[in-house]
Amino acid sequence: MVRVLICGDLVWAHKECEDLFRGLADVVTMDSPNRADFFAGLQPGGKYDGIVGIYRHNVSTDFIGIFDGELVAKLPATVKWIAHNGAGYDQIDVHACKERGIVVSNTPGAVDDATATTALYLIISALRLFAHAEQDLRVNKWKASHRPGAAHDLTGRTLAILGLGGIGLRLAELAHAFPMRVIYHSRHKVAHAPAWCEYYGADRLDALLAEADVLSVHVPLRAETEGFVGEEMIRKLTKGAVIVNTARGKVIDEAALIRALEDGHLGAVGLDVYPNEPEVNPRLLEFPNATLLPHMGTETCDSQKKMEVRALTNLRDYLTTGKGSDIIPEHQQ
Amino acid sequence: MVRVLICGDLVWAHKECEDLFRGLADVVTMDSPNRADFFAGLQPGGKYDGIVGIYRHNVSTDFIGIFDGELVAKLPATVKWIAHNGAGYDQIDVHACKERGIVVSNTPGAVDDATATTALYLIISALRLFAHAEQDLRVNKWKASHRPGAAHDLTGRTLAILGLGGIGLRLAELAHAFPMRVIYHSRHKVAHAPAWCEYYGADRLDALLAEADVLSVHVPLRAETEGFVGEEMIRKLTKGAVIVNTARGKVIDEAALIRALEDGHLGAVGLDVYPNEPEVNPRLLEFPNATLLPHMGTETCDSQKKMEVRALTNLRDYLTTGKGSDIIPEHQQ
Repeated sequence: MVRVLICGDLVWAHKECEDLFRGLADVVTMDSPNRADFFAGLQPGGKYDGIVGIYRHNVSTDFIGIFDGELVAKLPATVKWIAHNGAGYDQIDVHACKERGIVVSNTPGAVDDATATTALYLIISALRLFAHAEQDLRVNKWKASHRPGAAHDLTGRTLAILGLGGIGLRLAELAHAFPMRVIYHSRHKVAHAPAWCEYYGADRLDALLAEADVLSVHVPLRAETEGFVGEEMIRKLTKGAVIVNTARGKVIDEAALIRALEDGHLGAVGLDVYPNEPEVNPRLLEFPNATLLPHMGTETCDSQKKMEVRALTNLRDYLTTGKGSDIIPEHQQ
Repeated sequence: MVRVLICGDLVWAHKECEDLFRGLADVVTMDSPNRADFFAGLQPGGKYDGIVGIYRHNVSTDFIGIFDGELVAKLPATVKWIAHNGAGYDQIDVHACKERGIVVSNTPGAVDDATATTALYLIISALRLFAHAEQDLRVNKWKASHRPGAAHDLTGRTLAILGLGGIGLRLAELAHAFPMRVIYHSRHKVAHAPAWCEYYGADRLDALLAEADVLSVHVPLRAETEGFVGEEMIRKLTKGAVIVNTARGKVIDEAALIRALEDGHLGAVGLDVYPNEPEVNPRLLEFPNATLLPHMGTETCDSQKKMEVRALTNLRDYLTTGKGSDIIPEHQQ
């Protein structure tokens, strides 16, 4: 039987994993305490020799590091599929994978609901200044620094979504319930977006920024999106606008964001992601109008299980049909 | 011209107040530093003599105390209408008002949106354990105490609403977007409730509690609702259920709530209101699964202005038509 490697412990889907690969593949669990041991295991005769597919979770980075060019180069030629657990796959050098004929899949749909809910929470907290109100209460200062004039309802305000993938679209639906007005910018118009969700192309990005009360970031981190939300873009927002980020910290130029909080250009921010997690720039902690979560986007048992099952299923489908689902855009040509 | 009294400063609707009463009534502003001065002003020849209507906000309590039986008895016979700014009017003895022929109105619709949004925020934070995650981050403990197994998605879970007035109905709509399954208990079935929002009468209250993942409280505080959510009701919830309260603190038996947090019967709570505000029982601060806001339900400039305008309009309508809107249920017969 062929072998598949579980790289990053399963937490919720042990039984599903057994069921999916029974009679189909031997499941090997990565147990390397460090990168050198992992590399040794990949050698002919090593404990991971002959694997054809890898289930991968970011927790494996704590032991063997990210899947950069060096690591991808060490994978045996038998490896044809990496089923990543997660929407963002910035810890994998997908170009190096492509060159070696390895297809990468992710788990986009499985994270939509939990991540969009996180974005909605951050939007509410940012517009209503709830997180700071709780901080005041917890030091026995009931409403001490609250000014209702600085707090706003969501209803009737304009939410601009940067990147209308699955998460952005799910957030659009949740915000539409208020209703907020929802507008979006993506590289391309999204054919299945609802009519009330208006597209602003690259030629109208300035207009989108000028109309936004809230800018919510949902673009993946790639070389070309690093610092995408920078000084220029932030300054084109109306004074008092709110930025929410549940995508990746490096998509925003953090220094520009902090300057805009310092001089009051931004009304508030809600962040779930940071450029160098788990480090958080201590300057961010000083702003009363910053709600700061520790990358909780998909941290629910429901979503974690959905993601594990989805990634495992993508890998199983490759074994049974020669092609799996959720292939990342870079590998779809 | 007749006189109306503004009892509790207007913050947002000065201009609207001028416009509403121009040529119709003299607007007198309550400036008494204490209850004795207020009572003196109500005497014949006093500064508030001859007023026919009162606009009232709870901030006036800081100076003249609540509108209890004693205060209502001192109001001149000319007073026919008290236009209260707020949904909850537990600071007014409405029975004493009725006996004296004074009608009380509140501002129910104006608070629906902001209060339901607060409830939704508390539901998200309670199910996802977000507030505590931020507290950890802020003491440099990234995800230190987070267990994803304890965090849940909203989608697919059951929200039980106690009291389907305007706020409860608005929350139902917001939760339906996920969708959550929404069930409710009120004294009577609500005719205009949507079909997906299922009614549980008094005979099925136990079933509602057994099916609820989240119980959100939206009943007004009256003598008969004090402690309504008590030991017995809390224990009929499934283990791990969540309670959210944006109504009034005294509707829940706080000691029973704390016991259920202590022994793990409740999975989390989200509270915006407390029995003796601004005091918060320090025991509550010790539970990592408690999200605690300082009565922020309607604290937005949008809602505050809506409420001021609505209360003033109710008072104006009484002057021009002999009857105003938003008369409280107790005065509708």
